[in-house]
Amino acid sequence: MKFLKVDINTAAPRHPEASILLIYTGGTIGMVSDKQDESLVPFDFSEVIHRVPEMRQFKVMLTVLSLDPPIDSSNVGVEHWVKLAQLIQVNYHEYDGFVILHGTDTMAYSASALSFLLENLGKPVIFTGAQVPIGRMRTDARRNLITALEIASAQRMGRPLVPEVCIFFNTVLLRGNRSTKVESRHFNAFHSGKYPPLAQAGIDIEFNPSMILPPPAEPLRVYGDLESRVGVLKLFPGITPAIVKAILNSEGLKGLVLETFGAGNAPTYPWFLDLLKDAVHRGITILNVSQCEEGEVRQGEYETSKYLKDMGVIGGADISTEAALTKLMFVLAQNVSVEKTAQLLQQNLRGEMKARK
Amino acid sequence: MKFLKVDINTAAPRHPEASILLIYTGGTIGMVSDKQDESLVPFDFSEVIHRVPEMRQFKVMLTVLSLDPPIDSSNVGVEHWVKLAQLIQVNYHEYDGFVILHGTDTMAYSASALSFLLENLGKPVIFTGAQVPIGRMRTDARRNLITALEIASAQRMGRPLVPEVCIFFNTVLLRGNRSTKVESRHFNAFHSGKYPPLAQAGIDIEFNPSMILPPPAEPLRVYGDLESRVGVLKLFPGITPAIVKAILNSEGLKGLVLETFGAGNAPTYPWFLDLLKDAVHRGITILNVSQCEEGEVRQGEYETSKYLKDMGVIGGADISTEAALTKLMFVLAQNVSVEKTAQLLQQNLRGEMKARK
Amino acid sequence: MKFLKVDINTAAPRHPEASILLIYTGGTIGMVSDKQDESLVPFDFSEVIHRVPEMRQFKVMLTVLSLDPPIDSSNVGVEHWVKLAQLIQVNYHEYDGFVILHGTDTMAYSASALSFLLENLGKPVIFTGAQVPIGRMRTDARRNLITALEIASAQRMGRPLVPEVCIFFNTVLLRGNRSTKVESRHFNAFHSGKYPPLAQAGIDIEFNPSMILPPPAEPLRVYGDLESRVGVLKLFPGITPAIVKAILNSEGLKGLVLETFGAGNAPTYPWFLDLLKDAVHRGITILNVSQCEEGEVRQGEYETSKYLKDMGVIGGADISTEAALTKLMFVLAQNVSVEKTAQLLQQNLRGEMKARK
Amino acid sequence: MKFLKVDINTAAPRHPEASILLIYTGGTIGMVSDKQDESLVPFDFSEVIHRVPEMRQFKVMLTVLSLDPPIDSSNVGVEHWVKLAQLIQVNYHEYDGFVILHGTDTMAYSASALSFLLENLGKPVIFTGAQVPIGRMRTDARRNLITALEIASAQRMGRPLVPEVCIFFNTVLLRGNRSTKVESRHFNAFHSGKYPPLAQAGIDIEFNPSMILPPPAEPLRVYGDLESRVGVLKLFPGITPAIVKAILNSEGLKGLVLETFGAGNAPTYPWFLDLLKDAVHRGITILNVSQCEEGEVRQGEYETSKYLKDMGVIGGADISTEAALTKLMFVLAQNVSVEKTAQLLQQNLRGEMKARK
Repeated sequence: MKFLKVDINTAAPRHPEASILLIYTGGTIGMVSDKQDESLVPFDFSEVIHRVPEMRQFKVMLTVLSLDPPIDSSNVGVEHWVKLAQLIQVNYHEYDGFVILHGTDTMAYSASALSFLLENLGKPVIFTGAQVPIGRMRTDARRNLITALEIASAQRMGRPLVPEVCIFFNTVLLRGNRSTKVESRHFNAFHSGKYPPLAQAGIDIEFNPSMILPPPAEPLRVYGDLESRVGVLKLFPGITPAIVKAILNSEGLKGLVLETFGAGNAPTYPWFLDLLKDAVHRGITILNVSQCEEGEVRQGEYETSKYLKDMGVIGGADISTEAALTKLMFVLAQNVSVEKTAQLLQQNLRGEMKARK
Repeated sequence: MKFLKVDINTAAPRHPEASILLIYTGGTIGMVSDKQDESLVPFDFSEVIHRVPEMRQFKVMLTVLSLDPPIDSSNVGVEHWVKLAQLIQVNYHEYDGFVILHGTDTMAYSASALSFLLENLGKPVIFTGAQVPIGRMRTDARRNLITALEIASAQRMGRPLVPEVCIFFNTVLLRGNRSTKVESRHFNAFHSGKYPPLAQAGIDIEFNPSMILPPPAEPLRVYGDLESRVGVLKLFPGITPAIVKAILNSEGLKGLVLETFGAGNAPTYPWFLDLLKDAVHRGITILNVSQCEEGEVRQGEYETSKYLKDMGVIGGADISTEAALTKLMFVLAQNVSVEKTAQLLQQNLRGEMKARK
Repeated sequence: MKFLKVDINTAAPRHPEASILLIYTGGTIGMVSDKQDESLVPFDFSEVIHRVPEMRQFKVMLTVLSLDPPIDSSNVGVEHWVKLAQLIQVNYHEYDGFVILHGTDTMAYSASALSFLLENLGKPVIFTGAQVPIGRMRTDARRNLITALEIASAQRMGRPLVPEVCIFFNTVLLRGNRSTKVESRHFNAFHSGKYPPLAQAGIDIEFNPSMILPPPAEPLRVYGDLESRVGVLKLFPGITPAIVKAILNSEGLKGLVLETFGAGNAPTYPWFLDLLKDAVHRGITILNVSQCEEGEVRQGEYETSKYLKDMGVIGGADISTEAALTKLMFVLAQNVSVEKTAQLLQQNLRGEMKARK
Repeated sequence: MKFLKVDINTAAPRHPEASILLIYTGGTIGMVSDKQDESLVPFDFSEVIHRVPEMRQFKVMLTVLSLDPPIDSSNVGVEHWVKLAQLIQVNYHEYDGFVILHGTDTMAYSASALSFLLENLGKPVIFTGAQVPIGRMRTDARRNLITALEIASAQRMGRPLVPEVCIFFNTVLLRGNRSTKVESRHFNAFHSGKYPPLAQAGIDIEFNPSMILPPPAEPLRVYGDLESRVGVLKLFPGITPAIVKAILNSEGLKGLVLETFGAGNAPTYPWFLDLLKDAVHRGITILNVSQCEEGEVRQGEYETSKYLKDMGVIGGADISTEAALTKLMFVLAQNVSVEKTAQLLQQNLRGEMKARK
């Protein structure tokens, strides 16, 4: 996997107000029509200035890196996340902010993963992309790119306004690990139903400072490992022992996100509870997450979740599945004790869940 | 599993306009505070008239059956769905409509399942429940129950207005197999983002006739079998061969709902495609469903979904996971050829998905 | 105008947690069907307990006053507002909170007016009503009444949670002078687009303390006068000098709410500016309010509003027309200098507008 | 008032698919920063192609007319509407569609007026504008312009898709005489709460054909007169006889839009009813419109509106104030009998109100 520097042929502004590293990984945003057969092909990023002439108005020093070759976001994997985190680490002091162009399909997973890998992040890392290729007339690529660059440059009294990993899309800036793709046919492809937007882009970009994480007290710490031996088990009525057993006994399994009903409820069939109990005893970490869009796990409120709590299943509060999976990968990679693992999972690490009261 | 008849101590209305069978299965709607310790216990349904005195205003003959004992909806299984379908079959000609009180957690699954089991349904089957127990002061139980009864009784020129399996909740009547629980802390617990409400209950109940299924041309046909050897596999970046293999090779697996990215996209790693291909060859039916709330699978549009199509994975269009699972259970139980199975899954059977053009 | 005490035939609770004064003025909420001809007639409030049996669960001492006879809210006038303010003054120390049942048509005006008449209010004054008469089966009267009573009783550590004049309707508690009737056919008849709800009533009533006014430092002061010689002039393209002149020269006019375009813009025709200028010189107070639902007057931003500012028209920021009219009535009744009048109008007195920066 | 032709320096497309007349009248959309002092000045429309380079991708013959000088939309008057109607008449057969760039403040009034002046319109007349000047980096001008052009060109089998006067703004195409400016700080400045959008612009432009007016059976008829001696009277509690009298007796008054409460309700004070009655007798046409955003006048439902109906006040159903004023101007200019006037006002002429049942 390599990232190449792209010369975008713009003169640097005379009095640059910020310097931004723009990282292009692939996705719809960078597609144009092939002149031969009208199919979509990745465009030559060095020509971005012809597509987005208003970039010349920016008073920003812009450096562009492009993944070579660009990839479809369905093929993004753990190794890309680690590499992106390293890229930010290496360039951290040279730039005021980072913009990552990424396919929309797995953008919420990638933004979640980066949020965990980058501890004490003090600068903006803004993911964006597009629903319509940059080469089309009514594209959203241009406005998403422009606004993401503006947000990544935004400072007040020398400090970045948004020291977080975020997704900017359409008109909203969302916390990365609170975002989900809703994949509408419309331009508003992402939402974060359980946490308000960090900013709204209208006539002005209106930031919502009370919702944004404070700047870190400690220096940036970048992690280099994620445990990928994790799985998801979505419950449904009529689920059979065969399925539950197969997943819980899958080779090498370390952690499981259990997508439960409503406020964290699950069947109380003895065979089901026994299989989970056995898995917990074997050291598999199980994180209880609601399969409802606005669900919040409150283990113990009903009998149907009390059993889970009692056997050591960890309640994920209002965390999303995307954040739960990447958090589990992150926490398990630290190889700490069962108790410490449980504690980290129940703790709000990067704004990904409600803090416990 | 048995259903008991409950005497609710109301005189029958003098000139009843309709007759309704009300089936109580359990759930929050039927809970009251225990007088001893304030914990919630199922209430004695024969006292419903004290809780909902306005039921006396109904010009409806009401018969009540109660599951004995009531169950939490997390414990609902395939056998309950089959039994409910049979209850409706047995009582079909005696009543004008059916109301099923059910816990909210799995209501969307149950309503989907019933929709498939009841072919050529000509009368309303309305599921409802509550976010707040009927014994509490600010409960939504009463209004949900009253409105569901009114909808189940609604007729125009001797024909029921809504010959469908639906969920009524808060102010909206939703097609059952289009519904999803969103589990907010608010009263609007269900939505159906990809299909408009069949009715809105405000000052009047405003029906949306163009969205409601037409009355059937054939008599009711009730199915008695569902294949429960099915599973769900939710994709995520970094998913390992071990997990995919475990599910695809789980004992006796007949069908799988594959929750893909965006418009039906999946990784194109050779190991992943090989595992799927092998499963298809072994006769496992795989149904591609988007994990995005408003996603719609359009297999073949991007390279990342073309492979799936080519190997025989079936595209689920805009079907929800709840409907996809129960439809798979329903179709597989018919034991028809691979081709016929694929055709039924791609076909809009009960309004659960967009018709193919 | 007289208010009679109504005996509602409920035993007082043994250990009442609060005492509430409920004032019934009329409106849809109190209507039932006449037994003879099915037309709607005001119901006998002493029978409220039969309609709302859950009121017995309240641990609240309830006193009921009824306007005799009840009036339709279209006939509410300045004298009713003054009388209601006096009723609250007289009973202020005896009760923990006040609930006013009122027709929906002018409720936003009445709540605005009361908010100005009651300075340093330290207890809840909650307006509510209904879209459907209390005598109908699917009424919203009961839930609105119950929740309004609960909000009026809500305390934390002996202090009322909401020391404001509010409207509670459907599921939201809105600041009275920020509310507008939207009169949908649905149950959510009110909104306050420019200020968030003070509370949301779902499974719990979730208060939003940071949006609620703090308790007053001074004792309650009740005003007894409102200047009703005020008018509204809504601008529209093509408006003639004849109309503008007629209003500005109407007999005795003291103040005018000028409903302008967008962010406070008006035509710059000389005849128009001259007529306004002349009126200002004659001592008429003109308050510039946007006719757009979410409009906010920013006089001076465009040329088309700069003229208004320069001639002494007062910018109303984001105040609603309902609040602007009643505030103008309130401020003009104080008979203070032109400067002081302008200052009071530009100042946020009761949370009715954005504070100036 | 004159319109000049502007040369926009683009080569005509080789095989144009449509020809469009673009009429620039003024407004935010056409502003750029002055190089000297950064204030906003109208930009030279001949340079539009530098601001919106994607216009070159259009396969459309584009002719541009510019009002000279451009005006702020607060200064739009009846004479501009008549002139625009004439421009469309003169050019009707030469073009497939018309796009009018207009300030947002009075756009809803202008689109309403044009809808009445253009009877049997068979081609699209699309108004658009912007919240942010075209010269700014994050402007909505470009996307609004591009999409309006695309909609004005949209045809199916040689027939225009939208033979109506519309407003396109942000992502929605609204019927012009159903639109209202809501003036948010966001890009979605218009809505039409009582009628659904005619199209949504997302990845594709999704038209809603069942909501669009059918093509006319008769040839275009353009009207040249509007009666501007009309007014608006917004009711409020406490309104004085002086104000009502002043407006009703204003010089030359022909028609009045009466903004009532809720579903068309007004006070039943004798002085108020007498003043209205007298005006009706003097031949003044009074149109009853609800001041509520989603209000619908149903005169006669409550006593407080029955009086109005009985005295000859005309019920405006769900018409907006913007449409009511321009419709009144249009109908009164025809100088027909009182009965015919009333009939035309109660009739749905251009989709501006619910058809009577």
